[in-house]
Amino acid sequence: MAEFMTETEGRSTAVPRPGTAGEARKRAGGGAGPADAQEAAALLERTRALVDPELRAAVESLPGAMRRIGLYHFGWQHADGSPAAGNAGKAIRPALVLAAAAALGGPAARTAAVRAAAAVELVHNFTLLHDDVMDRDTTRRHRPTAWAVFGDAGAILAGDALQALALRLLAEDPHPASVPAAARLAACVVELCEGQHADSDLEQRAPDAVGLDEVLAMAEAKTGALLGCACALGALYAGAREEDVAALDGFGRQAGLAFQLIDDVIGIWGDPRHTGKPAGADLAARKKSLPVVAALTSGTPAAAELAALYARPYRVEEAEPGEIARTALAVERAGGRDWAQAEAADRMARAMQELARAVPDPEAAGGLLALAEFVTRRTS
Amino acid sequence: MAEFMTETEGRSTAVPRPGTAGEARKRAGGGAGPADAQEAAALLERTRALVDPELRAAVESLPGAMRRIGLYHFGWQHADGSPAAGNAGKAIRPALVLAAAAALGGPAARTAAVRAAAAVELVHNFTLLHDDVMDRDTTRRHRPTAWAVFGDAGAILAGDALQALALRLLAEDPHPASVPAAARLAACVVELCEGQHADSDLEQRAPDAVGLDEVLAMAEAKTGALLGCACALGALYAGAREEDVAALDGFGRQAGLAFQLIDDVIGIWGDPRHTGKPAGADLAARKKSLPVVAALTSGTPAAAELAALYARPYRVEEAEPGEIARTALAVERAGGRDWAQAEAADRMARAMQELARAVPDPEAAGGLLALAEFVTRRTS
Repeated sequence: MAEFMTETEGRSTAVPRPGTAGEARKRAGGGAGPADAQEAAALLERTRALVDPELRAAVESLPGAMRRIGLYHFGWQHADGSPAAGNAGKAIRPALVLAAAAALGGPAARTAAVRAAAAVELVHNFTLLHDDVMDRDTTRRHRPTAWAVFGDAGAILAGDALQALALRLLAEDPHPASVPAAARLAACVVELCEGQHADSDLEQRAPDAVGLDEVLAMAEAKTGALLGCACALGALYAGAREEDVAALDGFGRQAGLAFQLIDDVIGIWGDPRHTGKPAGADLAARKKSLPVVAALTSGTPAAAELAALYARPYRVEEAEPGEIARTALAVERAGGRDWAQAEAADRMARAMQELARAVPDPEAAGGLLALAEFVTRRTS
Repeated sequence: MAEFMTETEGRSTAVPRPGTAGEARKRAGGGAGPADAQEAAALLERTRALVDPELRAAVESLPGAMRRIGLYHFGWQHADGSPAAGNAGKAIRPALVLAAAAALGGPAARTAAVRAAAAVELVHNFTLLHDDVMDRDTTRRHRPTAWAVFGDAGAILAGDALQALALRLLAEDPHPASVPAAARLAACVVELCEGQHADSDLEQRAPDAVGLDEVLAMAEAKTGALLGCACALGALYAGAREEDVAALDGFGRQAGLAFQLIDDVIGIWGDPRHTGKPAGADLAARKKSLPVVAALTSGTPAAAELAALYARPYRVEEAEPGEIARTALAVERAGGRDWAQAEAADRMARAMQELARAVPDPEAAGGLLALAEFVTRRTS
């Protein structure tokens, strides 16, 4: 599965899109896409301004090598230790923490939740450091990954240190919500680990041995859980009732799944001029993304054709002309694309329901809606 | 550096030994070795009985694969998931937590600190899972390491999950000390990571590019820090004053360094019938253990001889007869053995001073003394 908004190269989508936050909001009388996009951009910028000093101070508090690797990973230093401009991703998760706090507790709650936002971002980056080691990914945010520069041990240990730092930030935060927030964030880490393990396990299994339910469960654990946790932590810092905390967790989870479904659709049919990777790259890598597994398990003749194509690794030099296009067509004819788009719309509708339960005032919910719209309809 | 008491195969020592806890205690009018050993054995057994249920419940609360790998690592399951007798090491760290709590707060504090003891043991085991991946160690506690059974990703993720579980246990513990304990444990994890990184960095450097101070600092971070943290957490759970918490941290750190020095001496001159590994194995592996670095930096003619030997990898098939014995002799003639023994005695004396500062009553300090004696003079 694609990392959720971990890269600065967002994917654009040229596909017809199912109901997203923007549409749900339009239906609810809210603003349309462009206004949302501006609002989201402003929120992300404000988040960076609020959270980066806390985040950077935390990373700079690390000793020697952990500090060096951490500063490199966040883009604040080059590999040689010289200062860099910084390119630490889009800060979606901390923005969700702050937007959830503001939605339920107003501006004071947003200010109080800055440390929690930094903790969530530290956890996210700890998982990136470790995922890159496990997946042998050599590039992140247009730079060599930490393990490629500092070795596996350096990246594993720096990831360990960032997890500890995240939980230390919360344990040292005098805010009354910090302790339940720490417990919730730690529980989320366990879920993320299980999700990442399920992902690597699924990728190693034969295509006909993977069920749609387990891929959805994996995506929820790997992608949805931390988005849900980010929103839940914001709600905790706003002093929200338990059911509202749970509703915001559900909002983030469902929005995260909608994102993943759309990202997987783009990974097959997206425009390579915008995505930064060739169309069909996920198919060439034989990724068991959500539309592919939906297609494989559809029981259609196209499913059998897709299974036959997926049964052997794709090699450019041996491939027949148009093989990837034929594979994409098989996914589509087996219903994988329609299913993913309908499922994304369904997940986004569920996200909106959860949000409306905890934050009935559309004005107060605006920031969270704009962020959900941003992640499911990004065009940059 | 040898892992601190991570294996059930303890090393015996045939070397003349510097001042250890037993001697310090004898000087202070306390009991002698055998009684200490019995007391330590009883403490460790009682610790297992108190902490194992908490520890096991925590590991069993993990989802799917994390649970399976965790239960395997702790020896509660075989690789196929069938029940195993359990062989989770000697529980030194949780015993230190409980003994420190009892020393400063009596039996009630000991009972209250069980969850903190489990958290420390979870952190220790998270580091073992990751260290084994990084060091490519294939055996732990007489069984294949977790990565050898479940792959690198499985072991990395299970380690991540155990760290999160440790901090969750503390965040969910209603005891008033649990929050400062969580902050302290998280800070300790950062130190452990830096220590492990320094260790792998030092091992990759040329023998003449390693200073004695930095090897001592590495050993303190890698081995001493968690022993100190275990004692400090016990003190926190006893409601001790800040200076007593710091003194107990110092006690654990210094005792940990004394252990490491003695373990390194045994790694060169120990009796292979008792250590379970051939005498000189550390020298054959060109380990930059503390006596070796002390010898290399001594400025003696023997130092030059040792540097020449260490300049090339040891290969049994190419080695001259008696080469390892000659290497050991060079370390000894360069003063590495004497230095290590004197340094261990000094560290143990410092440990005793720290302990006496916080726990002046020898009766109350008995458990901690017995454990310090046990780790620096173990014969099993």
